[in-house]
Amino acid sequence: MRKKYVIVGGAAAGPKCASKIRRLDQTAEITIIQKGKYLSMASCGYPYFIGGVFDEKEKLIATPTGTIRNPDFFAATKDIKALTNTEVIRIDKENKQVTAKNLETGEETIYPYDKLMVSTGSTPIVPNLPGKELEGVTTLHDINSALYIKEQVKSGNIKKAVVIGGGLIGIETAEAFELAGIKVTIVERLDEILPFLDDQLGMLVHNHIEAKGARIITGNSAMRFIGEAGHVKAVELENGEQIECDIAVMAIGVRPNSKLAADAGLKIGDTGGIATNIFMQTSDKDIYAAGDCVEVTDLVTHKKILWPMGDAANLQGRIAAKNMSMGNHSEYEGVIMTGVCQVFDYGVGIAGLSEKRAAQYGYSAIVSVIHASPDKPGFMGGKPLIIKMLADTETCRLLGVQVVGPGDVSKRLAIAAMAITAKMRITDLESLDLPYAPPYSLAIDSFIATAHALENKWQERMESISALEVMEKLNRGEKPFLLDARSPVEFDQMRLGIGETLVPFGKLRSTNLLPEDKNREIIAYCKISLRGYEAYCYLKNQGYTNVKVMEGGILAWPYKREK
Amino acid sequence: MRKKYVIVGGAAAGPKCASKIRRLDQTAEITIIQKGKYLSMASCGYPYFIGGVFDEKEKLIATPTGTIRNPDFFAATKDIKALTNTEVIRIDKENKQVTAKNLETGEETIYPYDKLMVSTGSTPIVPNLPGKELEGVTTLHDINSALYIKEQVKSGNIKKAVVIGGGLIGIETAEAFELAGIKVTIVERLDEILPFLDDQLGMLVHNHIEAKGARIITGNSAMRFIGEAGHVKAVELENGEQIECDIAVMAIGVRPNSKLAADAGLKIGDTGGIATNIFMQTSDKDIYAAGDCVEVTDLVTHKKILWPMGDAANLQGRIAAKNMSMGNHSEYEGVIMTGVCQVFDYGVGIAGLSEKRAAQYGYSAIVSVIHASPDKPGFMGGKPLIIKMLADTETCRLLGVQVVGPGDVSKRLAIAAMAITAKMRITDLESLDLPYAPPYSLAIDSFIATAHALENKWQERMESISALEVMEKLNRGEKPFLLDARSPVEFDQMRLGIGETLVPFGKLRSTNLLPEDKNREIIAYCKISLRGYEAYCYLKNQGYTNVKVMEGGILAWPYKREK
Repeated sequence: MRKKYVIVGGAAAGPKCASKIRRLDQTAEITIIQKGKYLSMASCGYPYFIGGVFDEKEKLIATPTGTIRNPDFFAATKDIKALTNTEVIRIDKENKQVTAKNLETGEETIYPYDKLMVSTGSTPIVPNLPGKELEGVTTLHDINSALYIKEQVKSGNIKKAVVIGGGLIGIETAEAFELAGIKVTIVERLDEILPFLDDQLGMLVHNHIEAKGARIITGNSAMRFIGEAGHVKAVELENGEQIECDIAVMAIGVRPNSKLAADAGLKIGDTGGIATNIFMQTSDKDIYAAGDCVEVTDLVTHKKILWPMGDAANLQGRIAAKNMSMGNHSEYEGVIMTGVCQVFDYGVGIAGLSEKRAAQYGYSAIVSVIHASPDKPGFMGGKPLIIKMLADTETCRLLGVQVVGPGDVSKRLAIAAMAITAKMRITDLESLDLPYAPPYSLAIDSFIATAHALENKWQERMESISALEVMEKLNRGEKPFLLDARSPVEFDQMRLGIGETLVPFGKLRSTNLLPEDKNREIIAYCKISLRGYEAYCYLKNQGYTNVKVMEGGILAWPYKREK
Repeated sequence: MRKKYVIVGGAAAGPKCASKIRRLDQTAEITIIQKGKYLSMASCGYPYFIGGVFDEKEKLIATPTGTIRNPDFFAATKDIKALTNTEVIRIDKENKQVTAKNLETGEETIYPYDKLMVSTGSTPIVPNLPGKELEGVTTLHDINSALYIKEQVKSGNIKKAVVIGGGLIGIETAEAFELAGIKVTIVERLDEILPFLDDQLGMLVHNHIEAKGARIITGNSAMRFIGEAGHVKAVELENGEQIECDIAVMAIGVRPNSKLAADAGLKIGDTGGIATNIFMQTSDKDIYAAGDCVEVTDLVTHKKILWPMGDAANLQGRIAAKNMSMGNHSEYEGVIMTGVCQVFDYGVGIAGLSEKRAAQYGYSAIVSVIHASPDKPGFMGGKPLIIKMLADTETCRLLGVQVVGPGDVSKRLAIAAMAITAKMRITDLESLDLPYAPPYSLAIDSFIATAHALENKWQERMESISALEVMEKLNRGEKPFLLDARSPVEFDQMRLGIGETLVPFGKLRSTNLLPEDKNREIIAYCKISLRGYEAYCYLKNQGYTNVKVMEGGILAWPYKREK
């Protein structure tokens, strides 16, 4: 008897699951039922399509060799029946069948299954703002919206865009517009964009985006869309400001499409996502689920979270397929919340927890550090990386790593993701044997150097202060002795201008510029704060009682510099 | 009392150790004694200096901000006394002192120590060939040789070079010459260059180097240097062939400088390197050692090995410094033999064991696979990666990963290095949460996809064959049915031409081209062998008893193609 598999949803997890089932079971009868017109779309590519990195929409729905992944493709190559424009409207788990409605004809058909996959995806959250029905107000979530925005961009009628939401998708969308020559304003409700980052790193990315010409408004929300002849002309904010635009993209997040599953009586988690066990099996033993519609375990905090990411969807779909066809044997443990995005010339990302998220989860004994260094030697064209690393001092385990900058960010995030997955401790990172050669890294890779700084701080061999804390002190009117340990040449080219004293590190042991009061607070820094740290060590030994290193030095300074 | 530290050797481990001691102990009396003229050289940068990536020799001995790391620098910034042109000729461990000889004046001075660091480095192996004293015959190991070769290159008198040794340094040197417009021949004694790679991957790199214009001679050795007016003019090989050249660089390896330590009665390991414990402490409790002169533990096989790498030297020097100044508390466990190099447009490297090395170490139950895929989506300009992964089927642990190709190799090696360090098993790699976004990777990263292929093979869901084994079969006159599963368009653009039959994957279920004999051997492949694998699954189910997938498909084919 041919085993019947029905797959609800044809975006990422669904087709991956169907294809894997086919490889495992050649006799299976496999049906994908997809609500939309397209199958197996490269959704994560939409911003690059809009930005003009490529212009052929076929590339969004084609195999690497150029074959369009339509129903014919699935039939011919995989013997998989794929129905498009067809919506599953009911799961009858008692009778093990689904009812699907052809969205063109309205006809309803019943499909029995032995095993069912629910991969219904997610829907963008669209706040109920006045004017949201105007032409030009859109999201960027499905291929139709991508095609719509691309067409608008290509028409040349769009000069200005507003992106509502400064998260990952919002920033990618904003970059796409800028690359396409369209002036963008990003509106973010929270105090800083990319809220998965801690503030200082978010500010550095913020500065970079503004330097590329985009405007960023934080701490403000869109309240309504203003139209003219049915087309959006401006977005009005909470504070009354109106931002002119020819297009407005809402990118404030997505919610899991779990209603179909809920209506069928499947267990839904507190997050709103479909609950599954480690085998991607729902509360019904013959129904599995994967992709944006499920909740997953965050392996750092052991909490359930929503994690609507394309890589996770594919991996979950694959694990589900193995278990659906061969019985439960293959485990999907969860994620560590690794994310990365390209923001103009910067890479930006995180693996594990940020410090603010760690605080939310009640971690109380955190040690963290911000470290700056080039990703490879200067003579090989090294570019800066700013890395923030945190660990739990109770378990000594690495909790999270954030990386931003023009250097090779994704590699350090990959290293971080592996370290967090493997539950490595601070000392496990001290002498990692990473691939070293000058074209790829420093002899001591930036990641390892950051771990060294974290260890110094954890072992109380270094007291440090962040740029944000320094700025707060200055704003409070405090007058710490700010010691810039660089050379006069460097000082001349670039400096903070916050009342610092230049004491070149090579002169530190002979200078008379140091404060007489050994209890005066001294904050030492340099370009990346290695010399700052060495100055710290010296000053402590000289009897100064209140010395700190400013973490990451000038490279991690997120405020305007004098020069 | 100021504690006295003496550091023998000023290249990498030594200065790192000295600087770290200073940070930990501001009152210490620290002396570096360096035989050569320069200190703290960026030795790994020599090939790039010669190749013209940069031309300022100062960059090899300067801090990132441009300060030359000479004795004045060490004195002013770190209060470290650095003696150059001074050789330690004797360690007297009973009296805790060393005797150093000023190489300019011949004067001998005694330096007492509380803790001693031996970081005497390594010496290139120079075979005793006739003519080796000729002008133009050199190694590339120290800064003098780098300056000499650079000068020769800049003089414009060099048109042809021979590099003897096809290992990492040899290949980097050969690339440097090619970049400088000099015609190179590489001579390697073994059957293939880069012997740390398994043959198929070595062959792919070999092809790439030859495509860039260099000549490679394997399975042959240099026997003598032929001169004219005191200058090398040719290298004569074992087979009598004479290769004309204006310069000949020997790069056949290094040996540890352990004689000073041996003469002092310190324990030397079977490898010839100085033996240390996990604290980098030698057999004398007050003497530590680090860098090229020590042996280290290979954490995969638990054997002692020599590992003369710049990153390891720095990390060892740092650990030694911590233990020397604060008592033994910080452990250096060893290496997993991670190495990477840039070879023109390819990255090339390994972490852990190759299959041939695993066999040498007696691993008998190995599963391995070669996988090819782009490093990111085609629409983002993805470039191929060829990955070989092996695991021990007894422990299920990942043993080694090799990566070559124009794609982002160093990132996948970094992931591999972390996975091996963390002793991950095949199934631990299935659903890794790596940083995914289209500018950086496929939704299922090449590394994870390779692990999936390995899992399929390990679980006997896939039988596969390497290109080398296919070629052996063909050479033996066997006639397997070679099934190219790509499209006619692809076949037209590129094909192996080894008697294959084109059966486009989309036609496989309806074709009449398949062999009638169900026991005939079928070898299926495509560009990367994903369709090859899907064809395999189908054919097995159709009752074919002897089907195999050719691993890595055409991308991993290391022989000449018809087209």
